[in-house]
Amino acid sequence: MKNYDVIIIGGGPSGIITGVTGKKQNQEKSFLIIKEEEKGLVPCGIPYVFHDLEGVVQNAMGPKPFIDAGGEVLIDKVIEINTTQKTLKTDGKKTFQYGKLVIATGSTPTIPKFIKGYDLDGVEYIKKSYDYIDLLRQKTDKAKNIVVIGGGFIGVEVAEQLAKFKDKKVSLVEMGNFCLYRAFSKEVVEKADKVIKDANVNLYTNNKIEEILGENRKVTGVKLTSGEKLDAEIVIAAIGYKPNSELAKNIGLEINSNDAIRCDNYLRTTQKDIFAVGDCSQTIGFVTGRTDNIMLASTATAEARILGYNLFGIKLLRNFVGTLSVFSTEINGVVFASAGAIEQSAKYANIDYVVGKFTDVDRHPATIADTSTLMVKLIVSPCTGTIIGGEMYGGKSVGELINVVGLAIQKEVTVYELVSYQIGTHPLLTTAPTKYPLIKAAEMAISKIQK
Amino acid sequence: MKNYDVIIIGGGPSGIITGVTGKKQNQEKSFLIIKEEEKGLVPCGIPYVFHDLEGVVQNAMGPKPFIDAGGEVLIDKVIEINTTQKTLKTDGKKTFQYGKLVIATGSTPTIPKFIKGYDLDGVEYIKKSYDYIDLLRQKTDKAKNIVVIGGGFIGVEVAEQLAKFKDKKVSLVEMGNFCLYRAFSKEVVEKADKVIKDANVNLYTNNKIEEILGENRKVTGVKLTSGEKLDAEIVIAAIGYKPNSELAKNIGLEINSNDAIRCDNYLRTTQKDIFAVGDCSQTIGFVTGRTDNIMLASTATAEARILGYNLFGIKLLRNFVGTLSVFSTEINGVVFASAGAIEQSAKYANIDYVVGKFTDVDRHPATIADTSTLMVKLIVSPCTGTIIGGEMYGGKSVGELINVVGLAIQKEVTVYELVSYQIGTHPLLTTAPTKYPLIKAAEMAISKIQK
Repeated sequence: MKNYDVIIIGGGPSGIITGVTGKKQNQEKSFLIIKEEEKGLVPCGIPYVFHDLEGVVQNAMGPKPFIDAGGEVLIDKVIEINTTQKTLKTDGKKTFQYGKLVIATGSTPTIPKFIKGYDLDGVEYIKKSYDYIDLLRQKTDKAKNIVVIGGGFIGVEVAEQLAKFKDKKVSLVEMGNFCLYRAFSKEVVEKADKVIKDANVNLYTNNKIEEILGENRKVTGVKLTSGEKLDAEIVIAAIGYKPNSELAKNIGLEINSNDAIRCDNYLRTTQKDIFAVGDCSQTIGFVTGRTDNIMLASTATAEARILGYNLFGIKLLRNFVGTLSVFSTEINGVVFASAGAIEQSAKYANIDYVVGKFTDVDRHPATIADTSTLMVKLIVSPCTGTIIGGEMYGGKSVGELINVVGLAIQKEVTVYELVSYQIGTHPLLTTAPTKYPLIKAAEMAISKIQK
Repeated sequence: MKNYDVIIIGGGPSGIITGVTGKKQNQEKSFLIIKEEEKGLVPCGIPYVFHDLEGVVQNAMGPKPFIDAGGEVLIDKVIEINTTQKTLKTDGKKTFQYGKLVIATGSTPTIPKFIKGYDLDGVEYIKKSYDYIDLLRQKTDKAKNIVVIGGGFIGVEVAEQLAKFKDKKVSLVEMGNFCLYRAFSKEVVEKADKVIKDANVNLYTNNKIEEILGENRKVTGVKLTSGEKLDAEIVIAAIGYKPNSELAKNIGLEINSNDAIRCDNYLRTTQKDIFAVGDCSQTIGFVTGRTDNIMLASTATAEARILGYNLFGIKLLRNFVGTLSVFSTEINGVVFASAGAIEQSAKYANIDYVVGKFTDVDRHPATIADTSTLMVKLIVSPCTGTIIGGEMYGGKSVGELINVVGLAIQKEVTVYELVSYQIGTHPLLTTAPTKYPLIKAAEMAISKIQK
């Protein structure tokens, strides 16, 4: 029985980054990652496998940085953990002893068992599996009619990509009034829905799948609650992900109401020497302090770095407590992004807020080539003026501008500070310094607070 | 004699933003801006007037937001100020009484009087004057051979723009070893020089103009200290700007060694009820606390907002004390940016530092379309791990990514904090979350500090 100081179950972003960071910090310790499939995928790159990339091969992600750092990798499946003896058994009949155990088992797509026909051939998912997605790309290439269920980020991105093939009819069905309504406020999702439709996607909001239709066990279409029927050879269900917490449950770790493994700010579970990180571990909202179910590679890697430094004792204090969700996506050339609280989440959590907003073009002067309209909204706590959230849409620069807001939230920057925030501006790159949208939105929030 | 609560001399970005902010905060007060020319220009847009824009008309900036807010504007020139009676006289023979006086007179290009031939016809400047630049564009359109003196931001940008006309021969002469060497470290300016040459600019570094050559009082070329002669119908001197502080000197305001008007953190000069803002007022380096001569519209507008809020008493505390220079530019499709200290400025100011660095592509996976190489460097104070500077080059996203670093410096974020900084990433917009360059550079800095 081989013994490792650290065994990590799972080779996604959180497993790899925990391994790389931990091994670099503790070069004398032995590290093993056990993962089920040889090849891995960049998770957020998966939607782009269906059009912009030539297939999964262009979206591969492996544990090379971990191996380069001196870690070992085994392709196998952990089937049993004995926490008293600190051992684990694999499907391949291997047994290991661990010093510290990291559970980084990720998440799996939710299966819509509540929809009749969910088990037909041709009902597919956006699984984080190289071989599965490889095959799915081959299937979508052949399909003429595709229905995507769920207008969250994954559903929207997959539909937008598939709709780039002009010979396909791609429909997107969302039960809410708008796509992406969990991440953005009404005026932003209105814009997003328009952009989605412009991208050649047949959008059905405020609608549900009543039944997935089939013949000879194969999908032929869907029937909507509105009564309309849509043809489809493939139905992709993108209705969310569930933490893979089975192994954790089996050893009696505490699990929260979202099925995620409970852990503290340093990713320690309720049992000694066992950690959980990434999609399978619980997240606590940065602003609300409540249990949340954010599953993003970006937040997972932030947690993984904290864990990597602190596996053998807290060396690096966690400065930003809680998980701040920072979302961004590009739909048909328009970028949408949000960070922290939005109006409805603030309202839901009974957080007092004011909104500051500003719209302008993202270059200056406005006559210059290649401009986009940039809308920025800040959600501000009126008592202290602290920024607790932000939303925006615009051109590509939004991808990093949202990270300015993200840092501002994490560092509890106030709108009063933002007024004297010193920025870099350039005609070809940003708005004018006289109209930098974060500052203008901050000024609007101040004027509301002053009233 | 008309009386105003606030008179602002100068209608550039700092004058206008002081006026707009001040008027909005004090709607019962009367505000007048006195400016010399009817039309104004977006200062940082001027280089783009020579190619990317169709001329000055596409780069106009006026006091409209100030007038909309209820301010008045007079086109005239202030020739005398009486600080005892709080009056001023204009060239147009008008006299005004002021309650508060704001000097926002800007800066003028430095004239190279030390070069023989500097006064020939055809020696031009990048003056912040609508009519002057309008005429200069007409002249450059006709010229075949143009020499630009000075490889700072303005010189480089003007040369890059002019060189886009394939029928012109554009030469750039810089006395230092590299262009832009005041803003960037060696490896970045090496890259910049390469990009400048690729942009069809004939670059002469480590070289000076010995003489501007002419016939019949008109420029015909230049002679370099290396002996080489270059033909030129136009020579553009872009060797710096001097604060317009004559008026201030005449009324006995204290002036610093850079000819800038001394003032405190709230832009108050050494005399009561007189303020100075923008290029004509002094700047104090954010990191070093020393007198500096930063002249940027971005920092000027940050100061102007502080001043606008605080004209009648300090209402808004200044949170970020000192001026943080954040520079960005795009040369031939490559974006260069810096914020705060760079290696040589830290060394010069005897500030202890370590460097963290990371290079990757700015999208993920790297196979996706439209990627650029992104290099990020952080300058870090090893004792506390505080970030005191950053530099980068890459694609357009650098324009906002540098503002993340700018905010980090202003909020004294440490590299230890950055490790758990929660970011938004997206395949089409940013690097991978596993390799976000600010975090990777922070990790490198930590590993150097730990040694």
